[in-house]
Order: sequence, then structure tokens, then C-alpha cells
Amino acid sequence: MRGKDLFFASLGCAAWCALAGGAAGQAQPEIPAKTIETAAQLSQRALAGDWSYRFLESLTSEVGQRLAGTEAEARAAKWAVGKLRDAGLDVHTESFPMTAWIRGVETAEIVKPVPQRLVLTALGGSVATPPGGLEAEAVVFRTYSALLAAPPHALDGKIAVVTEHMVRAQDGAGYGAANPIRRAGPSEAARRGAVAYLHRSLGTDSHRLAHTGALNYADGAPRIPAAALANPDADQLERLAALGPVTIHVTLTPTENPNAQSITVVGELKGREKPDEIVLIGAHLDSWDLGTGAIDDGAGDAIVAGVGHLIAALPQHPRRTVRVVLFGAEEMDYSGAAYAKAHADEASKIVVAGETDFGARPIYEVKLPVAVAKTPFAHAFGDLLPPLHALLARDPALHGGSDIAELQQAGVPVVSMQQNGLDYFDIHHTADDTFDKVDAGELAQNVAIWAAFTELAADTDVDFRQTHNTGP
Amino acid sequence: MRGKDLFFASLGCAAWCALAGGAAGQAQPEIPAKTIETAAQLSQRALAGDWSYRFLESLTSEVGQRLAGTEAEARAAKWAVGKLRDAGLDVHTESFPMTAWIRGVETAEIVKPVPQRLVLTALGGSVATPPGGLEAEAVVFRTYSALLAAPPHALDGKIAVVTEHMVRAQDGAGYGAANPIRRAGPSEAARRGAVAYLHRSLGTDSHRLAHTGALNYADGAPRIPAAALANPDADQLERLAALGPVTIHVTLTPTENPNAQSITVVGELKGREKPDEIVLIGAHLDSWDLGTGAIDDGAGDAIVAGVGHLIAALPQHPRRTVRVVLFGAEEMDYSGAAYAKAHADEASKIVVAGETDFGARPIYEVKLPVAVAKTPFAHAFGDLLPPLHALLARDPALHGGSDIAELQQAGVPVVSMQQNGLDYFDIHHTADDTFDKVDAGELAQNVAIWAAFTELAADTDVDFRQTHNTGP
Repeated sequence: MRGKDLFFASLGCAAWCALAGGAAGQAQPEIPAKTIETAAQLSQRALAGDWSYRFLESLTSEVGQRLAGTEAEARAAKWAVGKLRDAGLDVHTESFPMTAWIRGVETAEIVKPVPQRLVLTALGGSVATPPGGLEAEAVVFRTYSALLAAPPHALDGKIAVVTEHMVRAQDGAGYGAANPIRRAGPSEAARRGAVAYLHRSLGTDSHRLAHTGALNYADGAPRIPAAALANPDADQLERLAALGPVTIHVTLTPTENPNAQSITVVGELKGREKPDEIVLIGAHLDSWDLGTGAIDDGAGDAIVAGVGHLIAALPQHPRRTVRVVLFGAEEMDYSGAAYAKAHADEASKIVVAGETDFGARPIYEVKLPVAVAKTPFAHAFGDLLPPLHALLARDPALHGGSDIAELQQAGVPVVSMQQNGLDYFDIHHTADDTFDKVDAGELAQNVAIWAAFTELAADTDVDFRQTHNTGP
Repeated sequence: MRGKDLFFASLGCAAWCALAGGAAGQAQPEIPAKTIETAAQLSQRALAGDWSYRFLESLTSEVGQRLAGTEAEARAAKWAVGKLRDAGLDVHTESFPMTAWIRGVETAEIVKPVPQRLVLTALGGSVATPPGGLEAEAVVFRTYSALLAAPPHALDGKIAVVTEHMVRAQDGAGYGAANPIRRAGPSEAARRGAVAYLHRSLGTDSHRLAHTGALNYADGAPRIPAAALANPDADQLERLAALGPVTIHVTLTPTENPNAQSITVVGELKGREKPDEIVLIGAHLDSWDLGTGAIDDGAGDAIVAGVGHLIAALPQHPRRTVRVVLFGAEEMDYSGAAYAKAHADEASKIVVAGETDFGARPIYEVKLPVAVAKTPFAHAFGDLLPPLHALLARDPALHGGSDIAELQQAGVPVVSMQQNGLDYFDIHHTADDTFDKVDAGELAQNVAIWAAFTELAADTDVDFRQTHNTGP
């Protein structure tokens, strides 16, 4: 996950809460007992099987990292086409243009007061330093707001360093709150004269593994090289800066390919009665290049592909179409906009959309579109959750994830599965994002809940966007 | 810690157990109430203070890594001289010649079946690959014994890979058991024709951080480049090798300096009555170069220096001499032998020796020299332990640590403080060995127990080697 969606969530829920208050609308249909029974069976099959776990093992081993717009992402797409076909889905790919960013050398050392290596990683989109690096005195800010409070020219010729910690929270709220440090920090430092920008990784671990992620240069600000420090290295800079001047040498040599293509892989199960009504479940296929993209977002791919595999094996397709989307180039911020643009004419056909992009820890609660609160759908789905150790949230889903944010803006209702993310940001966007971090049983619980939801949503006439159409 | 001592321990206790069985000897002296009271006070002061924690912070921040025989170790020695002087000790240094080993580039990639980066780190003492690296097919052995079972020429032209896991155990027993994989594996692979040797890190974590450590080339075997893989990378090789041939490209460019010097720093508090009777407590000052040597063995330095600091502040010195030794070049296997050789004439003067080289987790039990089992010393010391959340072990100390192994062989009795090492090998010899891994309270508990022991041993006439002199 890239983080913009969580940041968005932190902005509040003005629009959606108003909708929730206004929930009224038409009566929602009862859910047939047979559909509920099928959903429950799918959950049981998910728990008993390991198809998704093996899918993830193969993706992370036989493909590995799959940086957006590179040969590796294309190879992943080809692999995914085969896997979804084997699972029984109708598969096609959708390409779109993008600028790929390719990591180069990334090294840094404290030069004064004592020579020490620093562990860091370039931010996605960062410009390069000169090939031999650049060297300058560091100015350490322990909070991002302290950097923002610095006047123009305060950082002329300096390397700005922000060491603010991100907060560990089950729902990942700390990431959203800290996101501007990575995304906006480089330009804020540049506006104040800095020649490079370093920040404490947006990560909750204490390992010498830095957390990458995309930055967003602001128009009108100089583009300076930017990188994230491993947490212990940020600590070290804080300690040394408290004792006197610190000089840092940093070398980053990333490159860009402005003529790259990304690929989204789509697998469908055409609805047997209403093929033009689409239940869309997705995850992103691209990953950062440091690890092998197991929790971000191979797990999500494995979950939604696993749902497709389970539903494809039913005696008949659900009434509505089930569409499994493995998005390309999420980490570089292209996926949601590219998909919404290419499918602008489908916004009204997608009855509900969901995305899984938060690893493979268990789902503890599900947030539904406000339109189905306290309806037969919610009761039927809610009844399936306790055996799966999850509950139905009191609050409605306010956001679905970055891959479907633009669809949501176009009016598509979203579901949101809340996973235990307490340790997600220990690993997120680091070299540590590898297959061994995923628990097979936890992954299966995710598949079980997504399968139940998808079956219930696709084999009924529930109107998830009802409150959009029928105000109070 | 380098591992030979634990390996030695796993060989059994033939010699020492025989001694334990033969314990008899002269009556041991009672411990004066005032001495016990002073020992208890020192423990309380240790728990209430943070001198050792600040010592460690300064060492790891203001010096950082201190690889044996390099400028960094010399800088650490200079720093330590100042710190021990400030603590009130009489300080001198002792140099000895060594061959320094300096890490170079260390990169590796899977070339076939798919390009993937491998995280590894060269073993200390490894020869280099050609500057451009070497490329060969991997042969993966899931156990070390499987490699040993391979016949001559079985690995001709291949890269041998051993992926055996080390076992997590509170006392570190897994490290001793696995130590031959790192130390002897390179030559065993070379004897069978291998051109390079990789092994799963001797580490219990699952991070993309490899665990370095020294190897020992065997006489008569070709010297081949050798490195440790991060655990997730060893997993990845296992998975891919199960699917078909795997080709690896590995580049290691370490160098050696055969004319290096290491430095041991010694601080003393001369005994007020028996200056020629020495209680020696030590740790090693050198560290591996990947981290900043916080748990290995900055913590040990902080503990024994902290004991010196506490005892120096007493109104009078203990009756015997307290000697705090910060050994040089432990990780490269020089420290113990160099010290024993230089102090061969003192073996009979050192009444007891102890070493702390297992991080800063709490001590849970203390093993004493067999001579003092069930003596007034053991009772007095044992009574001080429960408030410190430790106990007196039923078994005697069989080994003291690698810095004092040769002293022990020369007849010096040893004490052994057993720390909780369950997570020690998550961090040991990796870039993750940094200050943030140490808990101030846990470090203080170590200082408290070492201070109590040292005071009791130094301010009495207890004969720790008695059973050596008086057989049954």
C-alpha cells in the first residue's frame, strides 16, 4: 500500500458521515438461504485449503520483486495470467503508460564527527545525487512541524533530516498521519534551501532496514534527492547531532524510464443472470523492489485470486459478475486513476468494490457500505463472521484503498476489511517483505471472509449504493 | 561472542564434572557481614544509576563499530582509556599483533531461474572472489551433515549452500551446535570441489540481515570465498532449488592487513591488602563492523566498566585487586590466547575470572567455580540474588567465555553468569546490533549482579581454585 488512502482517511469523514446520517432508501432484499449456505461453504473451503498460500509462495519465489513499469512487473503479469486462468477465470490484461523509477546505488555515511555507515533507501521518484554523492552538514528536526516552521534559507546548502517517529496502531493510522513526512517533506526542505532530504522511515520496527515509498515533488520547488533512514540510523543521527555538527555524505543514483508500461491483470466470472452488474475485488500486483512483495501486496493478490478460484469451482456462477483485478503500478500512484479512467463508463455497473492491501494478518472487523447497514445483507454476512473470528463494524466503510479510490470518487460503494496491522509497518516497503512473514492460517482467514462477502454480494440483488440514489 | 566457547561447551563436561565430583578441600572462610552489606549496596547503586547505559550509548554513538585491528578499534581503545580513567581506575593498554580482515563489496544475485537479489555477508577471514565475482550452479544441502556425506568431487565447480537452521535456546546452545557450519563448512565444501560456500546465517531471526562471524580454513583445503545468507534468502534458495537448477553470482572483495595491531584496555583497582591476588572481569571491546557492537559486546564492556566505576567509588579498595579487561580482537579469535600468553606468569595470581559477552538481557542464574559450591561464599552470594531476580545454579561453571578460555586452561577458575539469550541470536553479528536493542533496566541488573560478585570475591580470602590444589 502506498499510503495516500490512509492519509485521506485521517482527513475525516464529512461526506460519508452525512450519507450515513441520511440512510433511508428502498427496502433491501432478503438473502436466500442457499446463497448464505454457499457463502459459508466457501469460507470453510478457504480455511481447509492452501491454494492462496501456494499462490503467494509461487509469486514471491518464482517471480520475486515486481517493480512497476519494469521487466519484473511484466513477468509477474504473465505469471498472474496463467494462475488466474488455471483458477478458472476469464483473463485479460490492461496496459497503461507510466514513468518507471529504477533504484540505483544508495549509500550514506556520517563523515564527521566519526565515520559511520548509515542505512537508508531512496524514495520512489527521487532524483539522483551527483554520481559521487553529495556532502553537507545535517540539520536534524525531531518533528516534521519543526521543519515546516523553519524560515526560507534556513537550510541553504544543508541536508534536512526529519526524525519524527510514526505511531504503531492496529489500523495503520500512524502511517496516514506520518505520510506527509515522506511525500511532502522533500519539497518542503527544498523550499528552505536544503540540498537533500532524509527522514526516519515510516516504519515501526527497529531494524537496519529502511522503508522506501513514493514521494510527491511539489510544483515550483527544486527537486532534491530524498531517502528514508532505518530507524536505528535516525536514532544515531539524533544522538550525534545533540553533541555537535554532523556531516553526511549521501549517494543515490536512481534513474527513470518515462516510456514504461504497467499492466493490470483482470480475471472474471461472468454473472449468470446480471453480467453487467460487477462485484470488483482487487489487490495490486506490483511491489517495491527491496523485498519480494509478500505482504505488500502479494498477500492481497493471493486473497482475491483465491476467492476467484473458490467461486469458479462452484456448480454455477453467481448472478452478478465477479471481477478479480490485480492492479499494476499502485506503489507509483498510477493504479487507481488509470483504472478509473479506462473504466469510466462502468462506474455505475460496479455494484461494490473492495481492495485488500494490508498484509495477511487476520481481519478483525468488516466495514460495509452505509447503504446496507442493518439490512438483511448485513445480518446474513454478520452471522457468518463470528466463526471466522471477525465482527461487523458499527461504522460504515469510508474508504476502500488506493486502487479503488478513484472508483469510489466516481460513486462506487466500497467495502473495507480491517486487518490487524500492528506489525504491518515493521515490514512494509522493506527488504524484509518476504514470504516467511505470512502465516498460512491467517491468510486463509482473509480468503474465507472475502469469499463469503463476494458470494453474498454477487449472488443477490443488494443495492450497495442505494443511499446515493434515494436521499431522505 | 565468537562461538568457540559455546561449541566447546557442547563437547561435554568430562574434565570439570570429574572435579565437581571430587570437591572436598579446605574449609572456606566466612564472609564478613560488612562485605556482604557493601556488595548489596553496590547492587542497589547499579540498579539506581545509568552510568553503564550512558557508557554504552557513548561507545556505540561516538565510536560506533570497532573492527579488530583497524583504526576504529584503536579509536575505541583510546575512548575506553578515557572512560575507565574517568571512572577512577588505573588504566593501561596492551597491544598485540594480528592480521586484520576488512570487509569489501558483498553482493549476490540469483541469475537463474529468475533474477533476484540475495542478502549475504562475507565471513570474517574469507578470501575474495575475483573482482567481478564468480558464477556457478548452487547445490543446496538442508543439513550440514548432508554436505559432509558428499563424496570428493561431488561439488566440483559448484557453489555449496548449507541451509540448516540453528535452534533458538535460552542459553545459546543452538549457536554452539551450529558453529561448525560457519567455521568448518568452507573447507569441507572446498575439499569436495566447491568454488564458494554459502550458509544460512547462524541466527534465529527472519530478517534480511545476514550474520557474519569468523571462519577457520583447514590446513590443506583450498581457501574458497564464504558468506552467510540472511534467513529469508536461504529459504528462497531452498524453494527455488526444489524446482530446478539455480545459478548464483556472488561477489566478495575483502582484504587483509597482516601487520595490524589490536589493543586490550585494562583498568585496575589495586587491592588494599593483597594486590597480587586478582579478580579479573572482562568483556571484549572489538566488534563486528556491520552494526555498532551494542549487544556484542558493548554491553559487556558497559557492565564490567560499570562494576569498576562502582567499586572505585567506595571509601576503600577491596582487599584483592579488581582488574577490568576490555579485550581486543575477540571476534577474530586473538583475544584469549594473546592475553594468556602475555600474562602466563599471572595464571596463579588470578583468583577468579569472569567474562560477560552475551548481550544485556537479564541474568537468570549464576554458575560458580566448583570449589565454592555450598560454601559460605555461595550462601552469601546466593542470598543477594533473589531481589535481583536471579538464582544460584545447581551446576558449577564449566566455561567462562572465549576471552578467558586460555586462562581457564591455565588453571584459572571461572564464574559464568547465565543471561536470557532467547533473542540474542536474532541480532548477533548483524547490522542490527545497535544501541536501541539494549534495555537500560536489564543492563543495570547485569551490573548489579557482577558488582556483587566482584565485591564479594575481591574483599575476601575465598579460594576459588581450591579443588585444583586439594584432590580427594
